[in-house]
Amino acid sequence: MKIKYSLLKEEKNTWARSGIIDTNYGSFKTPMFMPVGTLATVKTLTPEELYACNSGIILSNTYHLWLRPGEDVVKKAGGLHKFMNYKGPILTDSGGFQVFSLAKRKDITEEGVKFKSHINGSPLFLTPEKSIEIQNKLDSDIAMSFDECIGYPADYNYAKQSTERTLRWAKRGKVVHNNEKQALFGIVQGGEYEDLRKMSAEETVKIGFDGYSIGGTSVGESKETMYKMIEYSTPYLPKDKVRYLMGVGEPIDIIEGVIRGVDIFDCVLPTRIARHGNAFTHHGKINLRNLKFKEDFSPIENTCDCYTCKNYTKAYIRHLITSGETLGGRLLSIHNIRFLIKLTEDLRKSIENDTILEFREEFLKNYDKKD
Amino acid sequence: MKIKYSLLKEEKNTWARSGIIDTNYGSFKTPMFMPVGTLATVKTLTPEELYACNSGIILSNTYHLWLRPGEDVVKKAGGLHKFMNYKGPILTDSGGFQVFSLAKRKDITEEGVKFKSHINGSPLFLTPEKSIEIQNKLDSDIAMSFDECIGYPADYNYAKQSTERTLRWAKRGKVVHNNEKQALFGIVQGGEYEDLRKMSAEETVKIGFDGYSIGGTSVGESKETMYKMIEYSTPYLPKDKVRYLMGVGEPIDIIEGVIRGVDIFDCVLPTRIARHGNAFTHHGKINLRNLKFKEDFSPIENTCDCYTCKNYTKAYIRHLITSGETLGGRLLSIHNIRFLIKLTEDLRKSIENDTILEFREEFLKNYDKKD
Repeated sequence: MKIKYSLLKEEKNTWARSGIIDTNYGSFKTPMFMPVGTLATVKTLTPEELYACNSGIILSNTYHLWLRPGEDVVKKAGGLHKFMNYKGPILTDSGGFQVFSLAKRKDITEEGVKFKSHINGSPLFLTPEKSIEIQNKLDSDIAMSFDECIGYPADYNYAKQSTERTLRWAKRGKVVHNNEKQALFGIVQGGEYEDLRKMSAEETVKIGFDGYSIGGTSVGESKETMYKMIEYSTPYLPKDKVRYLMGVGEPIDIIEGVIRGVDIFDCVLPTRIARHGNAFTHHGKINLRNLKFKEDFSPIENTCDCYTCKNYTKAYIRHLITSGETLGGRLLSIHNIRFLIKLTEDLRKSIENDTILEFREEFLKNYDKKD
Repeated sequence: MKIKYSLLKEEKNTWARSGIIDTNYGSFKTPMFMPVGTLATVKTLTPEELYACNSGIILSNTYHLWLRPGEDVVKKAGGLHKFMNYKGPILTDSGGFQVFSLAKRKDITEEGVKFKSHINGSPLFLTPEKSIEIQNKLDSDIAMSFDECIGYPADYNYAKQSTERTLRWAKRGKVVHNNEKQALFGIVQGGEYEDLRKMSAEETVKIGFDGYSIGGTSVGESKETMYKMIEYSTPYLPKDKVRYLMGVGEPIDIIEGVIRGVDIFDCVLPTRIARHGNAFTHHGKINLRNLKFKEDFSPIENTCDCYTCKNYTKAYIRHLITSGETLGGRLLSIHNIRFLIKLTEDLRKSIENDTILEFREEFLKNYDKKD
């Protein structure tokens, strides 16, 4: 079967909602944060460590796997789940965002995008059909349509042309998609423009997908603009399909996204900041390199239920990070991923109790009060 | 209590023996291989991963912990076990080998060794008393006497003077050692010279320690010379005390060491070669970067019971290693550590059955037959 989304509860005062997604690799509740396993590995972690964080679903990057090890190797391994030994659901992106973020120069035509490998500069050509073909071979549970991620700010006319082209690409991708066990999501673009977001959402829904994502955020816009981009999109998406905000992982942005009707999120943030010694806390981010933690024999957060907080002190993690020991980034990755997943669990409870606005107020009050 | 060694069985045809060591943090059988956790972390791994490898005891480096985070931080944390969350026994070395291997210039006097930090070049002065004081604060289960590691080849007169000084240092260290829960081991030096090894062993035993180690190996000598250094030492060590060969971790050397009466071994080899993509197998070492593993969907060894071999293929590990993903080195570290610990388990069985020479023959036959 493909994935099945069921709406469980709509919060009374906002667009927030909770739901459940059934997949061939188990079910998970939404809102949910997806850790990113770019190269078929959530950096430094094993699948078991992700399960222990209560991860519902992870994301892996089509562009990166296309280059290394190549989609045919993954297919021969029996698909991405078997290749990386991950027994939960996996979503693959389309490569569109990587073309935007990694390629220094690119040549976008109706046919697709010509650009160069970020590894060795060799010429690459990615089309809607090629992206779907790769994702079919990867055999993820959810595939994404190939889109152009518009930068910010964008010229209105360019944003309009690009958004219309992304719609044509979405249709082409849907035509060639033929994996009965894989869901296919459409992506809403439209830049920062309300009418383009509405048009993109409505036309993408007309094509008909198993879920919808909001793209083109986290590209340099302000938080206010990002929240508007979401508000311009979600009202036109069907209630019985899952909604995914791409590339967003700041705790505050997850809360604001959920309030605006988003179900799932992904971001490299928790693992990336971990490798630089940073940890999420309810009082904001802290950097474990800080000298004040040298003899701090308490966990990152006393209230946290993650493996790291149950077993290690800030002093020890600081020692690992300042000594360049990879266990440090690993322990922080576990904490940060659990922090965001726990946040979505807390958001689900506040949706059930119709108290999400109070939850946001309380969260923000603590988060801004740096210790 | 301090550690207690009990001899269980002497192999009929060789000097090999099996035993059991009781400590305040549990018991383990010998022969045993000790993984090395230089900076209070066995690189990339958690304690739970080491327990799963059946690790009996790990080693941590006094010199490195002295520099980072400093022995006082570890003491304030409640000792090394609590600091790094390791619930099994821990041995700390004396720093002598690091002075030998890491310091580019050193000034050795009767008092101690002046040298420079390998991190920032700041001047350091390590004495027998200081080494013991640091190890007392680290609160390891087994502390080592401060010694001079003689290089190879060594001038006879220098080796004699150095070995005699190491004996005086051992006495000084014993005088200041005052941790009732920590065992103190003496170290046999003497370079490649039979009479000096015999003298060193006999005089060290006269001082009286809780165990004895054979130092000054793995410093550039041939395997034949290394085995001779062991043969020149073990006959003069008491049967009722544990014997430790320092810095040796090649499978063949562990077998030859056990045959010559050694009980425990340590080496960075399994984790160091892992980070470079290498795995121990019963057919010799393999490098997972090799193109021939690109579509090899079998584990490193079908017969291996480690987490890595039970869950991952060579193709996946190759992908991780060639992509620079740290999970690759982590998975290989688990396999390599388990390989050496399993080897010591197999050696124990062959000691019980008086078949260690047959075991060696069979092992060598396979190990040299590269696939």
